[in-house]
Amino acid sequence: MNIRAGLVGLGKIARDQHLPAILKTDGIDLIAVASRNAQGEGVNNYPDLGAMLAGEADLDAVILCQPPQARYHAARQALLAGKHVFLEKPPGATVSEVEALIALAKEQNVTLYASWHSRYAAAVAQAKAWIAQRRIERISIQWREDVRHWHPGQPWIWEAGGFGVFDPGINALSILTEIVAEPVTVLSANLEVPSNKDAPIGATLTMATASGAPIDTVFDWRQTGPQTWDIAVDTDNGGLLLSEGGNTLRLDGEVQLKAPDEEYPAMYRRFVDLVADRAIDADTAPLRLVADAFLCGRHCPTAMFED
Amino acid sequence: MNIRAGLVGLGKIARDQHLPAILKTDGIDLIAVASRNAQGEGVNNYPDLGAMLAGEADLDAVILCQPPQARYHAARQALLAGKHVFLEKPPGATVSEVEALIALAKEQNVTLYASWHSRYAAAVAQAKAWIAQRRIERISIQWREDVRHWHPGQPWIWEAGGFGVFDPGINALSILTEIVAEPVTVLSANLEVPSNKDAPIGATLTMATASGAPIDTVFDWRQTGPQTWDIAVDTDNGGLLLSEGGNTLRLDGEVQLKAPDEEYPAMYRRFVDLVADRAIDADTAPLRLVADAFLCGRHCPTAMFED
Repeated sequence: MNIRAGLVGLGKIARDQHLPAILKTDGIDLIAVASRNAQGEGVNNYPDLGAMLAGEADLDAVILCQPPQARYHAARQALLAGKHVFLEKPPGATVSEVEALIALAKEQNVTLYASWHSRYAAAVAQAKAWIAQRRIERISIQWREDVRHWHPGQPWIWEAGGFGVFDPGINALSILTEIVAEPVTVLSANLEVPSNKDAPIGATLTMATASGAPIDTVFDWRQTGPQTWDIAVDTDNGGLLLSEGGNTLRLDGEVQLKAPDEEYPAMYRRFVDLVADRAIDADTAPLRLVADAFLCGRHCPTAMFED
Repeated sequence: MNIRAGLVGLGKIARDQHLPAILKTDGIDLIAVASRNAQGEGVNNYPDLGAMLAGEADLDAVILCQPPQARYHAARQALLAGKHVFLEKPPGATVSEVEALIALAKEQNVTLYASWHSRYAAAVAQAKAWIAQRRIERISIQWREDVRHWHPGQPWIWEAGGFGVFDPGINALSILTEIVAEPVTVLSANLEVPSNKDAPIGATLTMATASGAPIDTVFDWRQTGPQTWDIAVDTDNGGLLLSEGGNTLRLDGEVQLKAPDEEYPAMYRRFVDLVADRAIDADTAPLRLVADAFLCGRHCPTAMFED
């Protein structure tokens, strides 16, 4: 029996990624959408989650794609109704929210899946296996993209709590915490906040692995032209470069693997497996690192930015 | 056999609180101190933790009282040496650090105790029991003190990552998360940062319990005259006021309990019990709320402050 899923928040990420991925995935069917402004095709439409839960007695799972500020309340509502929950990234607006959801999902004996799509990029698993055989000496992360291209008309991303450049940056942190077995911590951070915004447009983080290998990180939203999503790992036995957000792998400069993005279909296969076991997969490590960067970061005012 | 303990960081909190509390506690003896600038009396003295671990083969436990920025590295070193660890609050400079220490203590099968002294204030347990019988309607926290009195000559507290007014404020959050059974989350925050400092001198937090009761919080370091450390809880069946940092309890305006501060002796009795069981007591909830407040908080520049 396929999972009967309802999706909340029919915005760009839902249309670009979730709907096509659900269609491709065995074991799950989309039967309903809740959205204030948009309508899904071939499904029952509702104005909000409450109406969807009331109208769809047979719903098994809820997929939450709205901006993170609204996610906690909706996830609680769905979990309390006994539904399995799939969270877009970031899984909440704060770390405490996600910890509270994990506790509630355990109580309710349902699945909670905090999805980190970049962990499913084509080359991540191979990179992890390669690193596991070596001693890390240094990691360098460069995550540079053009916010005007990727986030047009999303004012919430610039508000306090909107994450700013950590919205893409958390993808890098999700890969980092997947491929490095040791814990990683933030030592210091500089947050560049435009004088007309409340969230950073750029950030540099000084991090380290537990055994002391330095991790230098640059997040920048002002990159025009070619975009850069690179993680370079120097080890005692060669160097690795993950680029294109984890979809291309180079070892000692030679391309080993270059594959198209198939992240969301992989996540939905994972979700179907989790629901079968009523299991929880909700790693807060990437979100914790972002909160830690704000906690210990120095705010550096920078030039006004018009998006 | 008493626990043989070594203390690291012989500053104000160690002399004012830890040394007298250890003397009062059955089951633990202080045998060594590590401090760059100070000497403990009647114990073996070392310049740093490494020298102490090398010089005291029989040491069972390490008590870490230095500023939080240095605590993670020292705690790892002690845990890796197989020692039980007692952490002053806050237990680390970041949330990820403490989570990494918890994982390491489990691996090493030793005690990790993240101490929150305000949870041991005289009236906290009674307040918790009273609240458990009622439905919370609203909570109001006022934590106002004079930083010049309490933190003279501590420049690290004003640096990025030094917590600022959250250094005392985290005590309020530690009581809050002890007396309220439900999860608590931060919805928004304003952080007042003096133009010549990198950490806030004042903060207001809008928080809520999972079931939606509002929690209004004011932290202020500019209070001269009488100091205020109050938590007021309105319920469906009466009101509670915890004041003097948890040492005085009023129910519907009448004083029920007023006792002197005996927090640190209570913590050392707890530590002795934990070590007997090799148990871990390391709740990160108060520190998570602080990180969350920085994550979603708006920075508001405010007047220069000379401490």
